[in-house]
Formats: sequence, C-alpha cells, structure tokens
Amino acid sequence: MARVFNFSAGPSMLPEAVLEQAGAQITNFQDSGQSVMEMSHRSKVFAEIFDETKANLRAALNVPKTHEILFLQGGATMQFAAVPMNLTAGDRRRADYAITGSFSNLAYKEAQKFAFCNKACSSEDSNFSYIPEQSQLKLDPGVAYFYYCANNTIYGSEWPYVPETAVPLVSDMSSNILTREVDFDRHAVVFAGAQKNMAPAGVTVVIVRKDLPKALDGTPVMLDYQTMIKSDSMHNTPPCWSIYILGLTLKWMIRNGGIEGMAQLKQQRSSLVYDFIDNSDLFSGTVRRSDRSGMNITFTTGDESLDRKFVSDAESAGLVNLAGHRSVGGMRASMYNAMPIEGAAALVAFMKRFELSVKGVN
Amino acid sequence: MARVFNFSAGPSMLPEAVLEQAGAQITNFQDSGQSVMEMSHRSKVFAEIFDETKANLRAALNVPKTHEILFLQGGATMQFAAVPMNLTAGDRRRADYAITGSFSNLAYKEAQKFAFCNKACSSEDSNFSYIPEQSQLKLDPGVAYFYYCANNTIYGSEWPYVPETAVPLVSDMSSNILTREVDFDRHAVVFAGAQKNMAPAGVTVVIVRKDLPKALDGTPVMLDYQTMIKSDSMHNTPPCWSIYILGLTLKWMIRNGGIEGMAQLKQQRSSLVYDFIDNSDLFSGTVRRSDRSGMNITFTTGDESLDRKFVSDAESAGLVNLAGHRSVGGMRASMYNAMPIEGAAALVAFMKRFELSVKGVN
Repeated sequence: MARVFNFSAGPSMLPEAVLEQAGAQITNFQDSGQSVMEMSHRSKVFAEIFDETKANLRAALNVPKTHEILFLQGGATMQFAAVPMNLTAGDRRRADYAITGSFSNLAYKEAQKFAFCNKACSSEDSNFSYIPEQSQLKLDPGVAYFYYCANNTIYGSEWPYVPETAVPLVSDMSSNILTREVDFDRHAVVFAGAQKNMAPAGVTVVIVRKDLPKALDGTPVMLDYQTMIKSDSMHNTPPCWSIYILGLTLKWMIRNGGIEGMAQLKQQRSSLVYDFIDNSDLFSGTVRRSDRSGMNITFTTGDESLDRKFVSDAESAGLVNLAGHRSVGGMRASMYNAMPIEGAAALVAFMKRFELSVKGVN
Repeated sequence: MARVFNFSAGPSMLPEAVLEQAGAQITNFQDSGQSVMEMSHRSKVFAEIFDETKANLRAALNVPKTHEILFLQGGATMQFAAVPMNLTAGDRRRADYAITGSFSNLAYKEAQKFAFCNKACSSEDSNFSYIPEQSQLKLDPGVAYFYYCANNTIYGSEWPYVPETAVPLVSDMSSNILTREVDFDRHAVVFAGAQKNMAPAGVTVVIVRKDLPKALDGTPVMLDYQTMIKSDSMHNTPPCWSIYILGLTLKWMIRNGGIEGMAQLKQQRSSLVYDFIDNSDLFSGTVRRSDRSGMNITFTTGDESLDRKFVSDAESAGLVNLAGHRSVGGMRASMYNAMPIEGAAALVAFMKRFELSVKGVN
C-alpha cells in the first residue's frame, strides 16, 4: 500500500522528506560512523544535533531569554504532575484550572494531589462542545497559575483567545503548537507532547520561565524543572532519536514558512473540511463554530452504524484513523503540521462520494 | 568514515542489521503506508509490534506470569523514585540500599525523599573498586526491599552473586540485562534503561510483580505501577519507535542464541580485553578481579596525559568513546550486547600497538 493519509490524533504523520532523510543516514550520520540512535548524548556530534534543534525551536517560536527549552520524557501526562509540583511551593499554593476537555480534566485531577485547585470554568455539562468566554471565567487572584489546554484533541475545540488573568498562565499546547505565536511574557510554562506536531513519541517539549521557585519537597528529580534547566535536559540520557527527528521536522517547517506557513496550512486544511461539513446534509460538526479546532475536526452523521461504515470505507480508501475517540464516537480528522493539503482535499472528496452514495446517487 | 566501534556507556551500538531493517521500512512499515514513527499506538498494526516485542522479551528473559513487563519513559532515574513510591506504602516503610557505585548512590538519595533507607553496605571509601561480600551486608529484616545495581557502569564492577535476603530484591540491570538469567521469584522489580543493551534511548523496561501494594499518596500517575500494569504501559502514548527497535533487537538476540549467546559473547569480549590488561606492563584495571564487570571495562596507564592520548589516538583509529566517566578519568570500554567480538579484538590490537609505541618499539 502506498503511503496513506493518516488522521491519527497522535502519534501522527511526519513529513515524508524528514523520514527519508533520517532513513538515508540511519547507519551512519554525516560520516560519524554511528547512527544517531547509537551516539553518546554527551558526544560532540550529538551535542551539535541537540543544540541546533533547541536553537531552531527557540527561533521558530520566538522563545525569549526569560524561558528555557527542555526536552523531557513522560509525555504531557507527566507534566500534569510536574506543573503543580514546581509552581506551588511558594506562598501561592492554589491553582485555577479551565476544564474544557478530557486532558484538562485529567490535569486538574492530577494536580489535586499537590495543590488546591479551583475549576475556573467548565464546559463538561455540554460535552465540552464550546470554550467558555472570558466573562465566564471565575478567577481566583491568589493562585500560582491559571491552567488551560489550548486545543482539546478529543472534543475538537480550540481556545479562540488567550485567557486574561492577573496570574501566570500554564498551557498544554500538544495539539496546536507551532501554529500560533505564543506570548511567553504571560505564560510561565508551555508544554507539548511532540508526537502530534513535531516528532515521534518519546520527547515532550517543556518551555519554562527560568526564575521559577524551588519545587515541592518530595518532587522526584526527573520532575524538577530547576534540575532539568541546570543540566540542559541531560540529568540523564535524553530521548536522542526523537530530539533528532524534531530537529529535522523544525528545519522542514522553517523551509515551509515557519509558524506563518503552518498557520496558513492549518487554515487551508480545516476550511476545506469545515466548509464541506457546513454545507452538507449528512455530516455535522459537534463544536460551537467560534471554538472549532483547526487541528482536530470532529463530525458525525448522527447514525452510529453509518459513522462506523464511513470510518471503515475511508480506511480502505487510504484515509486511516478517522474514528472519533472511543469515549466520544463519531469521526475525528486530526490534521497536524505535517498533514499536506492534499490530505484534507482527499478527505473532502471522500466525504462527498460517501454522502452521494448514502443519498442513492452515483 | 566507515562504521566505528563505539564503546560508549550509553546510548550504545545497536546491531547493524537492525538499523538497516528499520531504515528499509522507515517510510512504510510492512505495507501499512505509515512509518512506525507515525502510527497511532492504539492501531492494530502497532499493537502487533508492541505485543510481539513484549512476548519476545518475556520469552528471552523467562519472565514468569507473576510479573508484568512495562515499557516506560524517564530512564532508570525515574525508577529511582518510582520504586520507593510503589513499594513502601504498606506496613514496611523502610528499604536497604547497597552502595556500590554512582547510580546506586543516586538511587539511595532519591529514595530518601519517600522512605527511610539504610546503607546495607558501601564500597565508596575505596572508590567503588569492589562489590561487598554477602557477609558484609547489614540486612534489616523489616525493610520492604533490598536494592542493588547489578552492574556499576561508571566504576566497572558487576555483582558476582545475587544477594541473599529475607526480603524482596529490586535491581537496576541497565548495563547487564539479557546477559544473565534472573530469578524473578526473588526480584520484586527489575528495571533497565534500554539504551545500553536493547534499544535507543527513550524506553525503560520495568519488570514488576503484579501483586504490589497501592503506591504512596501523592505518587504521580505516570510513576504508579498499578496504573501502568492496568493500561499495559499505554496510560498515555508509549515511546513507540524505541519499543519497535527493541523488538528488532530482541529478534536479533534470539537469532544469536538468546541470553546464552549474549553471555558467551560477553565472556569472549571481556576476556580478550582483561587478559591483555592482566599481562600488560602499561595498563591496569581498577576493580578487584572477582568483581570486574563483563560489560564496562575500566583501566588506566596511571598517567593522566597518556590516558588522554590513548583516548584521542583510539578515536582516530575508529574506536570511539573510550574515555572513562568524567568523575573517574582513565579509560572505559563499554561492550554491550551489540558490540561484536571484532570490536574487542580491534581494541586489544590497538592497545598492543599503543603499548609498544610507548615502550619505544615499532
């Protein structure tokens, strides 16, 4: 089978050029006589890969000197614990959480092991089908931070604004990183599991203010931001291969217009699909229009067995992983930075044929 | 430069055949139309890779049904915290630690955040140049576990026996796993960062008794063994590519005689080098003979600048990463499962030439 269009929510497609480049040097990277998978992380040759990747990410995202870029392990879920452990040891022991989807809910629950957490807002009672507005946020001025998940992967919503708060922001940007500029003056911590928009699974990008307080007593050393900053992510062996592919993918992004290029692609891909849904008699979206995600497009026919047929027929047509999350049903097309516009176009063409066949027209 | 012999202590050499196999399918694994790096971890095609890898590891190490095999992130250092967090919540809140090298020392320090820890023995005052004997172990019968690091990577020693205790054992086997059988009836937990003997960095193999108590309150979910067991290591996205390469490497090991084959190779490689050192006027080992590691061979000329010359000349000869750990100096040849016997032979041939040139003989 030729390469498919893979709409998986994570891990996800990587640029084919990146895969080919990695493959061409897999036994011998740039004449070093070693695979990147075999290099000592403290060797000169890997240090160059590491430093270049970090520098390119800093440039692509405009990360200021006030913040350090860390390459950690454990995924976003490890950060659900690391954030409160590192941010609530000072005189502010509380945090505000915006509950807008599954992962922000999990982050809220995990954080309660370490700090007192308020629900600043919640769209849970309407199945997370919208993002609460600024006026709906119940803000506690005494918290250490306000936490939000910028794009909700399972439910298909994306914050259309950055919350205004008197306190620092923390954001999980796993599913929309590098598609929007980030105001780091407002964000104490931004993190992203790399395996949606940037790299294969195994590395989590964590961007933190350098001047954070000491972590809570009893914080495991691998969750301690100060240790990670001091050791430049190398307190122990970092996930070298994933960092290397992240580096290649960043170079691909830079060649393709950086954040601006990614934002344009995001707009083009998602518009193609949303426009079709909005004009369709068969498919409908599940999220309030102002809050629809540009990365994860959730939709349904309203009929469970027809949805299942759609997903199965799509797979046969080389459009894979279109099933909605098991807790939600329906369909979900995840289109991250490496999904070419042709993928969105192929999906729409397929949806058109499917709708016509349901209507009984050839 | 042709492929070098890489004596790095980790990450380390992988079998060249494994790298070539991974490279050949890097854009399209077995006609799936996807790279392994792009697969949803919950897809059928990745589940087969995952399950097969786990099954092969279980078979290769003879892991009984009483124990589960986990593929986690964070390296051995994350396990330094996970072990006490998971094992000391019952009525036994104490642990015994054998201090035989750098990493067991770090594990002991980390564990003290969570439990009361005794030093059951220590070779620190003689620079970790030996493994204490059974009669030297101060055993506390009321501990939850006895912890030892089976092979001390930095100092070049390896436990020549399994400690006899009335309590369960926990062992860090990162640098000698799959070179010896393990008595799992005696070990509650065995873990190994994969990037020495099994795979690229990014996955840590953790083999745990299924019937462990509930973890301490405040244990981050990603460190909770019960959660990891219940979710078959997929509470979140596992490090898929590293698990895949682990699978290929296991198949290579099985083709090459399994543990027996690896044990033979270990014996042949290390004997070649130790025999030369023992008969050399220039080089000497640093560890008591009975306790010398079969994986990490530490040696020195006794002269710092000559040692540096050795390492540098060796690098030019395609024998790389022979410098001893920065805290120790001297030389260290790490020869893990994928180091071919030719690497040991090339090292000895180089050592011979070097000694002759120092003696002033051609």
